[in-house]
Amino acid sequence: MTERGYDGFAIDEVVARASVAKTTLYRRWPSKDHLLVALVARIQDEVEVADTGDIRRDLTVYLTAVATGLDRMRRVGRDGAGEADRSAGVVAELVAAAARHPDVGDAVRGMFARRNALPLRPLDRARERGALPTGISSEVVFDQLAGALYYRLLITGAPIGADYVQELVDQVLSTATTASHPDGT
Amino acid sequence: MTERGYDGFAIDEVVARASVAKTTLYRRWPSKDHLLVALVARIQDEVEVADTGDIRRDLTVYLTAVATGLDRMRRVGRDGAGEADRSAGVVAELVAAAARHPDVGDAVRGMFARRNALPLRPLDRARERGALPTGISSEVVFDQLAGALYYRLLITGAPIGADYVQELVDQVLSTATTASHPDGT
Repeated sequence: MTERGYDGFAIDEVVARASVAKTTLYRRWPSKDHLLVALVARIQDEVEVADTGDIRRDLTVYLTAVATGLDRMRRVGRDGAGEADRSAGVVAELVAAAARHPDVGDAVRGMFARRNALPLRPLDRARERGALPTGISSEVVFDQLAGALYYRLLITGAPIGADYVQELVDQVLSTATTASHPDGT
Repeated sequence: MTERGYDGFAIDEVVARASVAKTTLYRRWPSKDHLLVALVARIQDEVEVADTGDIRRDLTVYLTAVATGLDRMRRVGRDGAGEADRSAGVVAELVAAAARHPDVGDAVRGMFARRNALPLRPLDRARERGALPTGISSEVVFDQLAGALYYRLLITGAPIGADYVQELVDQVLSTATTASHPDGT
């Protein structure tokens, strides 16, 4: 899939290359959409979530890695695509497959539920030590952060580079930053 | 498309029902994806953007309408779908079509650029009158708001009802609210 993209990808070729029985492969991944979910899960699992006590830095590092992973998935199977190409690529195929097939949808939502639990922990701990106001929900903070990245990738096509990630994190945490560093340091 | 959904929809049937020449219709909408963009644009254009001077209220009303429109699009062609069905439906097809076809992608991005310019105005004016800190970007605020809704719809499948919209707006504006109503009223 990383070589040829979603459209050019065929499970039968995976069977041929992997030298496993077709039934074995189909039992685990019944369709190419299921293999796509597995690919995205692997790329996501490469991104670690640090909890150093500096919530601004931890979120910036994490979301920069998420944005890099999204950009990598965007280019899956599209080696010839230039900078000007703003297609969301395979991430959009994942979204469409999740909408079409209930079992793929369940797999995608399960994958994100599992992954998104990780960055909620440093947010919860930041609130416990007073670096986030008590009225602020970690889930809603995370929706704002991840949501902005996916919104730009899938809907507006605006860039999600390191500068944008930093501005986004700073803005979302502005309340917390003001509260924890009233002198502006 | 609203009757049968994306898969069950055929341009030839539109031609038959609309009693126009096939070439006329194809000239304006070369594919069913182009018709889908037009459908989404129409649903979006029904949502007005108020600028009453109460940014919290204006954003809540606007985003509740956006969420209602998204839910309506989610159910396009799926009359039998129950509450438990969390598919993003036709919005996901729009995202996939935009990723696959550069001209559809341009149409989708152009539509959102045109629509998203509207809620930026009340945000800009709120900042001018001091209801938003000067360091806050209207575009990034809007990414956080719209992004959270689309992220839940397309990725996590979490609900985007009126309660969530209110919590989201309150949280995003928490800095502004604190600044404009320091006594907590």
